[in-house]
Amino acid sequence: MVVEDHEIFEAHEGGKLSVGMSSPLDTQRALSIAYTPGVAKVSRAIATDKTLAARYTWAHRLVAVVSDGSAVLGLGDIGAAASLPVMEGKSALFKAFGGLDSIPIVLDTNDPDEIVETLIRLRPTFGAVNLEDISAPRCFEIEKRVIEALDCPVMHDDQHGTAIVVLAALHGAATVLQRDMHTLKIVISGAGAAGIACANILLAKGIGDITVLDSKGILSSARSDLNPFKAELATRSNPRGLHGGLAEALDGADVFMGVSAGLVPEELIATMAPGGIVFAMSNPDPEIHPDVARKYAAVVATGRSDFPNQINNVLAFPGVFRGALDAGARRITEKMKVAAAEAIFSVVGDDLAVDHIVPSALDPRVGPAVAAAVAAASED
Amino acid sequence: MVVEDHEIFEAHEGGKLSVGMSSPLDTQRALSIAYTPGVAKVSRAIATDKTLAARYTWAHRLVAVVSDGSAVLGLGDIGAAASLPVMEGKSALFKAFGGLDSIPIVLDTNDPDEIVETLIRLRPTFGAVNLEDISAPRCFEIEKRVIEALDCPVMHDDQHGTAIVVLAALHGAATVLQRDMHTLKIVISGAGAAGIACANILLAKGIGDITVLDSKGILSSARSDLNPFKAELATRSNPRGLHGGLAEALDGADVFMGVSAGLVPEELIATMAPGGIVFAMSNPDPEIHPDVARKYAAVVATGRSDFPNQINNVLAFPGVFRGALDAGARRITEKMKVAAAEAIFSVVGDDLAVDHIVPSALDPRVGPAVAAAVAAASED
Repeated sequence: MVVEDHEIFEAHEGGKLSVGMSSPLDTQRALSIAYTPGVAKVSRAIATDKTLAARYTWAHRLVAVVSDGSAVLGLGDIGAAASLPVMEGKSALFKAFGGLDSIPIVLDTNDPDEIVETLIRLRPTFGAVNLEDISAPRCFEIEKRVIEALDCPVMHDDQHGTAIVVLAALHGAATVLQRDMHTLKIVISGAGAAGIACANILLAKGIGDITVLDSKGILSSARSDLNPFKAELATRSNPRGLHGGLAEALDGADVFMGVSAGLVPEELIATMAPGGIVFAMSNPDPEIHPDVARKYAAVVATGRSDFPNQINNVLAFPGVFRGALDAGARRITEKMKVAAAEAIFSVVGDDLAVDHIVPSALDPRVGPAVAAAVAAASED
Repeated sequence: MVVEDHEIFEAHEGGKLSVGMSSPLDTQRALSIAYTPGVAKVSRAIATDKTLAARYTWAHRLVAVVSDGSAVLGLGDIGAAASLPVMEGKSALFKAFGGLDSIPIVLDTNDPDEIVETLIRLRPTFGAVNLEDISAPRCFEIEKRVIEALDCPVMHDDQHGTAIVVLAALHGAATVLQRDMHTLKIVISGAGAAGIACANILLAKGIGDITVLDSKGILSSARSDLNPFKAELATRSNPRGLHGGLAEALDGADVFMGVSAGLVPEELIATMAPGGIVFAMSNPDPEIHPDVARKYAAVVATGRSDFPNQINNVLAFPGVFRGALDAGARRITEKMKVAAAEAIFSVVGDDLAVDHIVPSALDPRVGPAVAAAVAAASED
């Protein structure tokens, strides 16, 4: 499946989204109902009873896909305008796999105060917020503050969408390899948004041996150069007290999870324990080519749709938001995230294999299964 | 054409808009093009050359329909959430009559600084701004500042959309009555956004005898209670130096234009010069019922779609924005607005009659005619 550049650019001409009407405005009667004078009755009703906005506007089920363009895919801080094709793609995926309307909101500011303040002002416009491609460590503070300020589902997908699918994929990989997930030695390369969230969800699942690296090496309590988020994680990870870099971390490890843009030399993957697991998730360029990784690891996954075992957030976010909105949830809780991961794993079912540890991103069963699990976990 | 309330509310269930994809995401190939890894090439290209955003995203032709809900129809300050059904209706009309995508942006603030600041931050999200239902006199300052801050078409529709269609309708009414538009004595009841904009466009067309009233009476230089916008207009209107209220203004007048929510007693309309013109445009309740007005006036128009001669902004704004965007215009100039009015009048053509001074809001010829005229006026 070779995709030529000209095909990609042609497909993006004019953008990837459009806004449609729920019913045509082609008669005076339709105009009188949808616009003046009819619409005044609906506005007046909402002014009297604000809860009616949820019923008579699209906002209640509209997801704002919000980015400042500061950490776009593996491309870094390319700015709001350049991030928009990615956000349009997200909105398209929300529709295709979650049946949800969404709009890209790209912000020409990197200031956390301004981002939070802007979303508070925009609050009546939407019903949920998918934060996207916002750089760490700002994303942790921004997500926390937006969750507190807005009384609706909010999730930074680069953190939790990734973590949910990684947990599902690890469950799949461990199951197909007949390994106990909890005893695996796991190395996470990347201590940004995705890396920290993956470590957190795996630690929450009771996995004990997790080593996380940033660009300067293994996170450990001995380091004095860590931001507060990395320093805190250092106290809960690296149980064997390793020091050094990727060579020290990968030696004998069972699982490599790459969530940085840094390449990993083949020689280091070769030092992992036999029959291991490699998730080379950097986009668009995996940390190691899957064909090379497969020489050493029993299960290999990437973030790309053109290789097997695609660990793609699209397995999670449409269903997570759909489930949260279906349930009228005001928060997306840890329990809902774990329920989403279990639902993704469950869909694989009897098709589980080394090259099929997660469902296809196109599998139409995933979105509804995740939505149902998330809604149920919300209601508990 | 009786429209029952339950029909109106049923038609608004879940809102009136949806977001669709320009092409389906149902194959791995489609995913690889529209999302990862393909989309990274488009984002990278825009990061290198920002002008490519206009070509490869939807923002360039996306209209933000922005309101703070402070002056919604004739309902007043009902807030952002309650304004949303109107903004959804606007977006639907943009699509139906201008072929433009648009998104409602409703803001939970009435502060001009915050509104302007928010739109500056959102700038990469859209390509044009339709300000809507923002109360006077704040709307004048906000529009001016947004025009200066954003390098794209911006128009407060309650001012200029109304003024454009009123000018077209007056041209039609004067023509059908074989009167010289420039010699008419015109009374405008309402000195808010629409009233002031109507006065301005009529004055710009060389109409000399215009009397404008606010809730306290006729604007005149003798009054000390006027805000700066009304005071300035007082110096350019009321050439006969009238004092008093609607009774004094309407006595012998040729044209009544109502753009307030205030009712006008039949006895006052009866004092107008014979064979006059009544535009009772308040929504949803006209200043005087058209059946009553018709006892005295030769031409009667309202803002409603369920009476003849609907003076509705939908005749203007879809084509105005479409024309401005088609031409790549950075401003919507006075010349473009007058060109829009002339285009609306032209579409009536040989069908001109006392109950057909403007085209039907449903006439599919209007949007393209206005767009072409506006684009041409922009390029001059």
